[in-house]
Amino acid sequence: MAIARRMPLIQPFHVMALLARARELEAAGRSIIHMEIGEPDFVTPQPVIDAGHAALRAGHTHYTPATGLPALRRRIAVFYRERYDVEVDPARVVVTPGASAGLQLVLAALIDPGARVLLTDPGYPCNRNFVYLFGGEPVSLPVDATSAYRPGVQQVRENWTAPTAALLVASPSNPTGSLLDAATLRDYLAIARAGDGRLIVDEIYHGLVYGEPAVTALSVSDEIVVINSFSKYFGMTGWRLGWLVAPRALIPELDKLAQNLYLAAPTLSQHAALCAFEPETIAILEARRAIFHQRRDFLLPALRELGFGIPATPDGAFYLYADCSRFTTDSYAFSQRLLEETGVAITPGIDFGNNNPQRYVRFAYTTSLENLAEGVRRLRAILD
Amino acid sequence: MAIARRMPLIQPFHVMALLARARELEAAGRSIIHMEIGEPDFVTPQPVIDAGHAALRAGHTHYTPATGLPALRRRIAVFYRERYDVEVDPARVVVTPGASAGLQLVLAALIDPGARVLLTDPGYPCNRNFVYLFGGEPVSLPVDATSAYRPGVQQVRENWTAPTAALLVASPSNPTGSLLDAATLRDYLAIARAGDGRLIVDEIYHGLVYGEPAVTALSVSDEIVVINSFSKYFGMTGWRLGWLVAPRALIPELDKLAQNLYLAAPTLSQHAALCAFEPETIAILEARRAIFHQRRDFLLPALRELGFGIPATPDGAFYLYADCSRFTTDSYAFSQRLLEETGVAITPGIDFGNNNPQRYVRFAYTTSLENLAEGVRRLRAILD
Repeated sequence: MAIARRMPLIQPFHVMALLARARELEAAGRSIIHMEIGEPDFVTPQPVIDAGHAALRAGHTHYTPATGLPALRRRIAVFYRERYDVEVDPARVVVTPGASAGLQLVLAALIDPGARVLLTDPGYPCNRNFVYLFGGEPVSLPVDATSAYRPGVQQVRENWTAPTAALLVASPSNPTGSLLDAATLRDYLAIARAGDGRLIVDEIYHGLVYGEPAVTALSVSDEIVVINSFSKYFGMTGWRLGWLVAPRALIPELDKLAQNLYLAAPTLSQHAALCAFEPETIAILEARRAIFHQRRDFLLPALRELGFGIPATPDGAFYLYADCSRFTTDSYAFSQRLLEETGVAITPGIDFGNNNPQRYVRFAYTTSLENLAEGVRRLRAILD
Repeated sequence: MAIARRMPLIQPFHVMALLARARELEAAGRSIIHMEIGEPDFVTPQPVIDAGHAALRAGHTHYTPATGLPALRRRIAVFYRERYDVEVDPARVVVTPGASAGLQLVLAALIDPGARVLLTDPGYPCNRNFVYLFGGEPVSLPVDATSAYRPGVQQVRENWTAPTAALLVASPSNPTGSLLDAATLRDYLAIARAGDGRLIVDEIYHGLVYGEPAVTALSVSDEIVVINSFSKYFGMTGWRLGWLVAPRALIPELDKLAQNLYLAAPTLSQHAALCAFEPETIAILEARRAIFHQRRDFLLPALRELGFGIPATPDGAFYLYADCSRFTTDSYAFSQRLLEETGVAITPGIDFGNNNPQRYVRFAYTTSLENLAEGVRRLRAILD
């Protein structure tokens, strides 16, 4: 069968095979501790669910405009003022069916075949694949714990050679949880500007930060494209809803693409999300953030004690990217072994890039403290 | 600002400007008869809405597998047996966030840069743009009323030159409502097979047929890729849910793309759609089909009497593609004039391709008989 040449470049999530095996073991009665899953274990906050019921009762089942409900675009803009003290014109906000669609719109609008896009490695695996989708060339910026997993300014500059279209970074990052500060974002932007390209910042883990509040790239410049999501902090993964904020000149292009690629984000999700920023919801989300914080503060020292290398404390998201070279030279086989022998499911480094992935695994603290403690107990039993 | 070279090739929906003007006029107090809108005017059937409430109460707010809820894939397969007496393996069904995502997955998996894709003109405008998105070359097959808007077998054969990747047809078609029979589909398939390419059939208006029942391409061959949707017949536009059925060898490729491009279709929509095939829902949908039938049978002779050219009675969908050359040589200006002078909103031919679009307009009968009658009265007043 004839398959497009891009297809072998696009990798499936390797963790899916592990997840399938974990489900198999569970179906056979084994107890599995899930630390591989990249979504909050909490159900969507009740006020948002209530707003979903209300939208259903009101019969909101038709298409919305391609860029989203005007009321939601305005509400998102107000949220930037409330949380970050940044003014954002609602006309620059595009509501998307998940951050995936936001990334896709932006890269489709900016990336020509052959164009280079700089990405951190490790990083979110789909980013690279979006670049392949449009015939671009993902260029890895290897990062590690010595720079807290942030691309160095010099490193970005050296890799920004023509025709480079964009630098795509995440703050907090998946899988490393590292944050970017305003000064670094300004330096990146200066390089992008000088190279006639774009800085794109993925802020989908914003809100899930356990020290200093995160800086939004929108406070640095209106020229930066910011991708965000209702999935992680707002606990709305299954609703498939996100947003982006882009320079005004880009909006008609993104609108045109949205009309053609997906027509509009799910209507019910958009109506429900109007309640996501209300104080009642935010109170629930902040309580959950405190729980994630507790989990991180339990799991991080426990993994270090077992011998995993996590030199810097991650600032955000709900992941620990851990060096497992004390136990193995093959993190994929190691993940398989842990699953089979202890029922602990984690994600091998290979899902995040090509920068020594065999040396790393990712632990997600998207399960209860009790489960995390049980997972650590099981790991100790075979690793000690 | 640097924009990708594909962007000027991708057109926005021209009707959006008309729609915006219609909303402006409405806001100023004018009465507008909407015959431009490509979605059912009905709210989603109550059993599906009830299932949405139940899913919210059950807390179904997390991701599903990328290919969809197994129960929904199975239910769709059963629907093919119930309605068409065709056996479909649930493993060949992929649930997608709208038919748009289905088209995108399939074309991303099959189309290399430079590859030709044959499309009818007039046709659904996004198809061409998906081809541009992946660097392919859309090749128009001009069709008109003399062949009931179906591409001729000879015409397909003559246009199937290497490297042609696929023929994409719709049955019923938007904007013409024409249907493809099994013999024609078999002929198309033979050409595609001989040319080592694919036949893709868009069946998103299936169910909305007013004469003989439509044949699904799946009854012709398992090699054909079929795209379908919960939007039109099932009245679930805003839920953003569709499905595709593909040859088994293609499924791992589509799964991989789904993981990367959008993770999964909206969870709530998938749970609700489980009720879309139940007898109670189907009874509502069939009553609505009868209403669309009535509307067609009112509007078609009324437009003909006014002087619009609609030589063949369209078999399905909810559109009439009408030759307006008796009134104008510029259907876009004509649509604008009708809107301004009579408050009747229709879609100009330019939104469906480059095959004499200035000669055609599309009327959608997605509004009540009463509104359609009022629209015809207003048109008569200025066209007679």
